[in-house]
Amino acid sequence: MELLQATMSYSETIQENITHKVKLPKKEDLKKAQLRINKFINRTPVLTSSTLDKKLKCKVFFKCENFQKMGAFKMRGASNSLLKMNKNDLKKGVATHSSGNFAQAVALSSKMSGISAHIVMPTNAPTVKKNSTIGYSANVIDCPPTLKDREETLQKVIDQTGASAMHPYNDMDVIEGNSTATMELLEDYPDLDAIFAPIGGGGLISGACLAAKYFSNAKVYGTEPEGADDAYRSFQKGEIIPMLNPQTIADGLRTSLGEIGFEIMKTHLDSIFTVSESEIISAMKWMWQKMKIIIEPSSAVPLAALIKNHELFKDQQVGIIISGGNVDLDNLPF
Amino acid sequence: MELLQATMSYSETIQENITHKVKLPKKEDLKKAQLRINKFINRTPVLTSSTLDKKLKCKVFFKCENFQKMGAFKMRGASNSLLKMNKNDLKKGVATHSSGNFAQAVALSSKMSGISAHIVMPTNAPTVKKNSTIGYSANVIDCPPTLKDREETLQKVIDQTGASAMHPYNDMDVIEGNSTATMELLEDYPDLDAIFAPIGGGGLISGACLAAKYFSNAKVYGTEPEGADDAYRSFQKGEIIPMLNPQTIADGLRTSLGEIGFEIMKTHLDSIFTVSESEIISAMKWMWQKMKIIIEPSSAVPLAALIKNHELFKDQQVGIIISGGNVDLDNLPF
Repeated sequence: MELLQATMSYSETIQENITHKVKLPKKEDLKKAQLRINKFINRTPVLTSSTLDKKLKCKVFFKCENFQKMGAFKMRGASNSLLKMNKNDLKKGVATHSSGNFAQAVALSSKMSGISAHIVMPTNAPTVKKNSTIGYSANVIDCPPTLKDREETLQKVIDQTGASAMHPYNDMDVIEGNSTATMELLEDYPDLDAIFAPIGGGGLISGACLAAKYFSNAKVYGTEPEGADDAYRSFQKGEIIPMLNPQTIADGLRTSLGEIGFEIMKTHLDSIFTVSESEIISAMKWMWQKMKIIIEPSSAVPLAALIKNHELFKDQQVGIIISGGNVDLDNLPF
Repeated sequence: MELLQATMSYSETIQENITHKVKLPKKEDLKKAQLRINKFINRTPVLTSSTLDKKLKCKVFFKCENFQKMGAFKMRGASNSLLKMNKNDLKKGVATHSSGNFAQAVALSSKMSGISAHIVMPTNAPTVKKNSTIGYSANVIDCPPTLKDREETLQKVIDQTGASAMHPYNDMDVIEGNSTATMELLEDYPDLDAIFAPIGGGGLISGACLAAKYFSNAKVYGTEPEGADDAYRSFQKGEIIPMLNPQTIADGLRTSLGEIGFEIMKTHLDSIFTVSESEIISAMKWMWQKMKIIIEPSSAVPLAALIKNHELFKDQQVGIIISGGNVDLDNLPF
């Protein structure tokens, strides 16, 4: 994915703080994205828990993207990217590689637009996510579970079909679409002090950064499993360190960080917290038992991080983006 | 539980259709109950699924009492009953026997009212429900898992403490409180054609009958597991047949039918559907996977019944009361 040169034509942007490698969407662009994808997505609810608030001594607002269409925030970025593509190019369909939620998001967005979708999925993708992708009428192509194999297989598919490629997170249109989750949260609760989100490829957290900077005074915190802490290490070092051998139950967060998201994070992310596997499982179980909602392990990471660091957020209003709820019920960690 | 004689003083009631054994609350009494318990309960959301509507060819509205305080509709009946009790009598606390949700509801209502609660629980009660009851500061007393042992132990507790007894379902104040779940659903969707609810002791379904008859033209359908079908058989025969050896995963529905609820059901319930264990588990799994909410097995019974009989409800608007979401995650059926 080529990084674009910034133009100097912004009227109301945060350009002054950003590296010149990445052309950021303007505040107006985020609003347009929200209108564009309106019919493709659900306005998801925000849930609270007085028990949790009492325990953590702050007010927590869960933006429940597990209730999003296809069960995850990825629907926002995929549909925004698809709707911004050239219609002529789309006659031969779209193609992407994904182990899970983005696959389903592209499949469903394409189905809703009457476009064919070709999805390369690694053989170790969760069965439930693969079946859902097929259920949304996508053409699913298996490949071995390495990034190299995924990219090579995708290229072959594109060569054969003429389909347009879509990147799951290293794509500004995807990030722009993802930002609408945080925009909605801030429309409902404009006075948030902090926003927590998980980091996989960086598409969700960088969207959260953009929305927070344009529409609030909230600080933004990324959260990661200790066993897939490439963003934490990259953020410390100031350059991307790829994730070579991720070891975490949070299957959505095993991805390496993308360049575009990282450029946004470098300037606009406040900090990154990491948590252990047992902290993730414990937070996930708490959400299931007390909030009565199904969240996937990746979505438990920000709550685990807030529980661990709650003294830092005393009396604050904290938003948490629950990224998704696609879980294999036959393969639970408890 | 003694059945009260009906008076002839109703102004706007459904008395003409009801047996004279039971004094029914009036429409106005239901409205008062709603105001009375307002601060003790959550106004729970109603969820829908376009996927399900397409599959079943009707419109389904889930009233999500799994999001109720303590995780089940029982909070409504318990708090209404408690708030209607004589304050002097309550100085020595309340006492009840319950294997689960009612225990938690009485414990939490009592805690919120500053009253002590003594709860007799059978040794086979789910651990998660027992721990929650203790967590709400109740005094929990173990007993062997038979109705006789439960009642004898409760009597001993009452003799020792002077606490006031509360019955989990065979109590008109409890039924009146429970009716508010259906009232809220009908406030949100006044044109429902049918309402489905599970039948355990009959406290939820009879509350649904009252609310439906006073506030809508909806028909009301009870639903039961085949392995605990005492209400189905009692309804057919016109007299209560106790449930001797219930065999079902739906732990909330193993109870025998209460007399008060049965009297209401005899006149105001339209029909009862039964479903198999595999149909219950399959509906429960569907709700978890597709709706992303935790419901307990008992709450999957009405959806299972609608799926089985959906041809009868073509193009109709069907409300389903999701009774609760208190599940032992270490002991799942899948």
